[in-house]
Amino acid sequence: FTLEINKNNWEGENQSKTSRNKNLLIADPVKPCQRTRAVLKECLLKLRYCLGHVCGMEWYGFAALGILTAILSFLMDFSVTKLLRAHQWLYMKLDGHILLQFFCWTLYPACLCAVAASFSHNICPSSTGSGIPEVRTMLAGITMPDYLSLTNLFTKFLGLTCTLAAGSTVFLGKVGPFVHLSTMIGAYLSKLCTLVQDNKEKASGKMLVVAAAVGVASCFGAPVSGVLFSVEVMCSHFALRHYCPCFFSAACGALAFRLFSVWSGDIETLQALFKTNFPTALPFYPLEILLFALLGLLCGAVSCCYLFCHRWILQFTKTNPIFIKMLTTEKGLYSGMVAFFLASLTFPESVGQHMASQLTMKQLLISLLDSGQWSSQSHNASVQPSLEWSSSGSPVCLSLAVFLLMKMWMLVLACTLPLPAGFFMPVFVYGAALGRLLGEGVAYASSTGVTSGQQQASINPGGYALAGAAAFSGAVTHTLSPALLAIELTGQLSHAAPVLAATLLANAVARSRQRPSFYDAISISKRLPHLPSLAKACPSLPFTPLGQVLRAKSVQLQKAATPLEVQQAVNTSTETQIPVVDSHGLLYSVSISSQKYMDFSFAFSQVHSILTLLEAETLLVAERGRLVGLITWPDVLNVFSIIYMY
Amino acid sequence: FTLEINKNNWEGENQSKTSRNKNLLIADPVKPCQRTRAVLKECLLKLRYCLGHVCGMEWYGFAALGILTAILSFLMDFSVTKLLRAHQWLYMKLDGHILLQFFCWTLYPACLCAVAASFSHNICPSSTGSGIPEVRTMLAGITMPDYLSLTNLFTKFLGLTCTLAAGSTVFLGKVGPFVHLSTMIGAYLSKLCTLVQDNKEKASGKMLVVAAAVGVASCFGAPVSGVLFSVEVMCSHFALRHYCPCFFSAACGALAFRLFSVWSGDIETLQALFKTNFPTALPFYPLEILLFALLGLLCGAVSCCYLFCHRWILQFTKTNPIFIKMLTTEKGLYSGMVAFFLASLTFPESVGQHMASQLTMKQLLISLLDSGQWSSQSHNASVQPSLEWSSSGSPVCLSLAVFLLMKMWMLVLACTLPLPAGFFMPVFVYGAALGRLLGEGVAYASSTGVTSGQQQASINPGGYALAGAAAFSGAVTHTLSPALLAIELTGQLSHAAPVLAATLLANAVARSRQRPSFYDAISISKRLPHLPSLAKACPSLPFTPLGQVLRAKSVQLQKAATPLEVQQAVNTSTETQIPVVDSHGLLYSVSISSQKYMDFSFAFSQVHSILTLLEAETLLVAERGRLVGLITWPDVLNVFSIIYMY
Repeated sequence: FTLEINKNNWEGENQSKTSRNKNLLIADPVKPCQRTRAVLKECLLKLRYCLGHVCGMEWYGFAALGILTAILSFLMDFSVTKLLRAHQWLYMKLDGHILLQFFCWTLYPACLCAVAASFSHNICPSSTGSGIPEVRTMLAGITMPDYLSLTNLFTKFLGLTCTLAAGSTVFLGKVGPFVHLSTMIGAYLSKLCTLVQDNKEKASGKMLVVAAAVGVASCFGAPVSGVLFSVEVMCSHFALRHYCPCFFSAACGALAFRLFSVWSGDIETLQALFKTNFPTALPFYPLEILLFALLGLLCGAVSCCYLFCHRWILQFTKTNPIFIKMLTTEKGLYSGMVAFFLASLTFPESVGQHMASQLTMKQLLISLLDSGQWSSQSHNASVQPSLEWSSSGSPVCLSLAVFLLMKMWMLVLACTLPLPAGFFMPVFVYGAALGRLLGEGVAYASSTGVTSGQQQASINPGGYALAGAAAFSGAVTHTLSPALLAIELTGQLSHAAPVLAATLLANAVARSRQRPSFYDAISISKRLPHLPSLAKACPSLPFTPLGQVLRAKSVQLQKAATPLEVQQAVNTSTETQIPVVDSHGLLYSVSISSQKYMDFSFAFSQVHSILTLLEAETLLVAERGRLVGLITWPDVLNVFSIIYMY
Repeated sequence: FTLEINKNNWEGENQSKTSRNKNLLIADPVKPCQRTRAVLKECLLKLRYCLGHVCGMEWYGFAALGILTAILSFLMDFSVTKLLRAHQWLYMKLDGHILLQFFCWTLYPACLCAVAASFSHNICPSSTGSGIPEVRTMLAGITMPDYLSLTNLFTKFLGLTCTLAAGSTVFLGKVGPFVHLSTMIGAYLSKLCTLVQDNKEKASGKMLVVAAAVGVASCFGAPVSGVLFSVEVMCSHFALRHYCPCFFSAACGALAFRLFSVWSGDIETLQALFKTNFPTALPFYPLEILLFALLGLLCGAVSCCYLFCHRWILQFTKTNPIFIKMLTTEKGLYSGMVAFFLASLTFPESVGQHMASQLTMKQLLISLLDSGQWSSQSHNASVQPSLEWSSSGSPVCLSLAVFLLMKMWMLVLACTLPLPAGFFMPVFVYGAALGRLLGEGVAYASSTGVTSGQQQASINPGGYALAGAAAFSGAVTHTLSPALLAIELTGQLSHAAPVLAATLLANAVARSRQRPSFYDAISISKRLPHLPSLAKACPSLPFTPLGQVLRAKSVQLQKAATPLEVQQAVNTSTETQIPVVDSHGLLYSVSISSQKYMDFSFAFSQVHSILTLLEAETLLVAERGRLVGLITWPDVLNVFSIIYMY
């Protein structure tokens, strides 16, 4: 006696669809060009068969996901470069007219930010922010269809282009939204794959995990760190069946992104995005490892300070009535005002001259990663980047210090902007500046002979900038993949060991005492149902007993129910399946496919994985509620030995 | 009415232990030097407190694991280098006496192999082979104490040193046994940690996962690929809580390994093990990607052939009566004979002159990764490595072809040797030779103008060797981490994209049609209870219903059992806990801590992870066997919203 009610009968629907397709192939008197359509359809079906013969349809989906994301990334870079160049050109043309220059400098980013904010506010409000907290939540199994719509894709793409075109004055990045963009493409492609595939299994979960990897990979052309990032943001366990698709898709994305750059004539061949030329003979002295470790600790401490300010402002914007009003109704105005304020501070004739504000984000990073020592080169006109940092004649270290102090609160303020924006790249650049400051100090100290004896090769401050960037961004996001990302971005594998050491130490400091990460703070502030981040704010949550969260009454049917009672139960319940119990209240029948009850007819592989995953010693097995036996590891081993016997 | 029988009452034991410790501190009239001992103990306790204040004791364990493995790795490299040099010196001294040279060339490795085989046969038979299949099985949750004993550690270390000292004639490697060695150290350290730790939670599972990462990391000084390797060999899900420990321990191991190399004077600073000097300006032309893809497909095809031969010889040694007798009783003799045979073939005055047999494994790899083109340099005496490959005056490509043909069956034969040995490095070198052959062909074709027009920079055959090494070893082991390992070993990040592409394609070919990998074949041959590998040999296994593997009768107690019945049940059963049922056979009481039954008092986080991991829609909850309700995603979300309300 088994009762199973499938309210939306998928299989029947599918059958009717396929039969309809067949009918279309044979004859359909209403539509024109019957023969052409039929031939075309047959060709398409043949193509599908041929493609499906080489590998599963989903693999084409993974490849398409990588390539599409790379195309989007390339297009965005292309248009942002044009917009930034236009701004620079206008600013140069107005040379001599200081007031006009001021307005050009401030109004351009202000307008762009206002446009981005009002655009996303009016078309798709869920397109604002980084998107990584939402993606994490979706990867943990919670469906949020708003965040995967095509409207959101469109809005986020245009809004992000505007934000990035506002340049280094608002100091925002691209990574987070790109991870979100690629998950949207992934969700769309997985729907397509399900349509085309023969066996209608759901691939959406897999596609989302893969898309998270592709986002980082095609943003920077860095496949391996993309996959590691995907491993890190996954809920609590990374399924190995996602591993190969992740790598495949990320490799496609990274390769396509770099090939587009080659074909567009930017670079001659595939190479790292921020390629550096560190001296290869002696990248660093072994004892410098200790200084790198110190840098890691410093980055961890600064990240704690930054994250505290960030949490404070998130709280403030939610409690201050003026902010609440501005952020709910006047998003465009607010964004424009904040951008204007930030831009007026960075105006090159004011404080901006002490913080290299004329450089774009990319140029900032490239200048910070420069291998030469600035403090000794400040009078050498041939070295371009350091000139920007000492344009006012002040020492480089002072410029770096001003940059660090100002950008700290400017970054915190920029986080409140309600537009699509990433926060990884700014943090990465900030860390690079922090590392550079220490590196310059060390280089200066060593060149003036404080640490005498090793004068043959000078200290490379660029290496410290690299380690600082990885360590600070890793500490802020509580991840280790920035270490690998820094290496892949610059192509400097020689510094792998110190970068990894600094990142590990910075993470240790940042994660101590259950502090929430940057994304955790946003998750909590946005009230996203993400257990790991919520557990940091409310440590008792994971240990809440099931009894406290259980729904008191569920619809259930008696074994001896009459047809009328069944009818009533179906009408009352919103569930697709209703459990049947006998007169003792004892569970009588459940469908195994969709409900995970440790039932008699479970498959062996499921038992194996439950024993492994939950680190269980014994599994009790019930058949229709009654205990029929138990499974322990020795039993599993026994099965293996029986199999081997044949 | 709940009954719980803990046969080994841990808590009570612990309490008595701590009270005993306290008593020791106060007074113990029998033992001498009471005061000194008391002071020492107090100091140690204080130290433990101080250390525990900075971070958990397990983190010191992870650091120690990395450093100890690195020390072992360095010591082994050191002694192997000495032994190889001694052999070379002797061979050189005997120059002119061809017969003596022959005996020196053949008997040295034969004796070493015989010693290694009989040593491991007599002391610890489970120390033979690679160890990776066994480690995989242990990571999947099955305990095999034989494989983690200290005797095994000792035997494996000495045996492996002998095997490696036999050099490139027997052509065996170090990686696999090192992963095994590090898991043994890990198991020992986890026992130590459990002794020292305050809260006696089991950390052995975590330590084993970490140890798998450390093995590769300290073998090559490559931390990131070590972690990726650990992710890949894990059963089916990689737990994120292992991620940071893995990286930390792998970084410690890699750093220590490289620092030892620096301090021993081998190298000036921390750098890649097989550092190459590829031209950085234009590493490869974008269209060469297609050639790299072709190389990947070729490597995949050759790997299928190699794996087929490997499976055949594994089957042959298990069915052929002569082999069975040799391999059970005369392991030493067999190993010596095979090594003698292999060595006589590679004797430099015979076939060996066509296959660069005078180079060690390391020199072979370095020569193959050389960036210059050999075919055009063959008359240039200043280029050392290519000289070895064309010492007989024959063209380089012919030497490479002979090398590939001979080594194929020699490798297969070497796999039957019953001694501690790794099979990764040989496969890696073989792949490099395969890539080199293609690379030399392409370089020759392009230099003679077949692909004219791009004459300004020549093709780099070393890049093909690198991609071939990664692709072939990845295809043989069905993993992707060799791609990253190849990059970390050589420091050539510029070739990341083509190496990854080649590895992915080679894997696609090798994994098609559910073919077992190298380690899968060994797992099946050794009858290890490892589900993923067994599933490839017997595809129906994972879908076997639970009912078929259930033990028919389990000891259970009636709710109304008399004390005598309880006593009997306890005496009969070998389980530590006995379920209690009521008169309907309905499950009445189970302890939640050790038995995973979806019970009323489960914690919220467990429910969350079960819903996520098993991709379930609904969980039915039973309290004492009776259905009390069900949990779906909306309920979980509801909990979140309640939490957020406060």
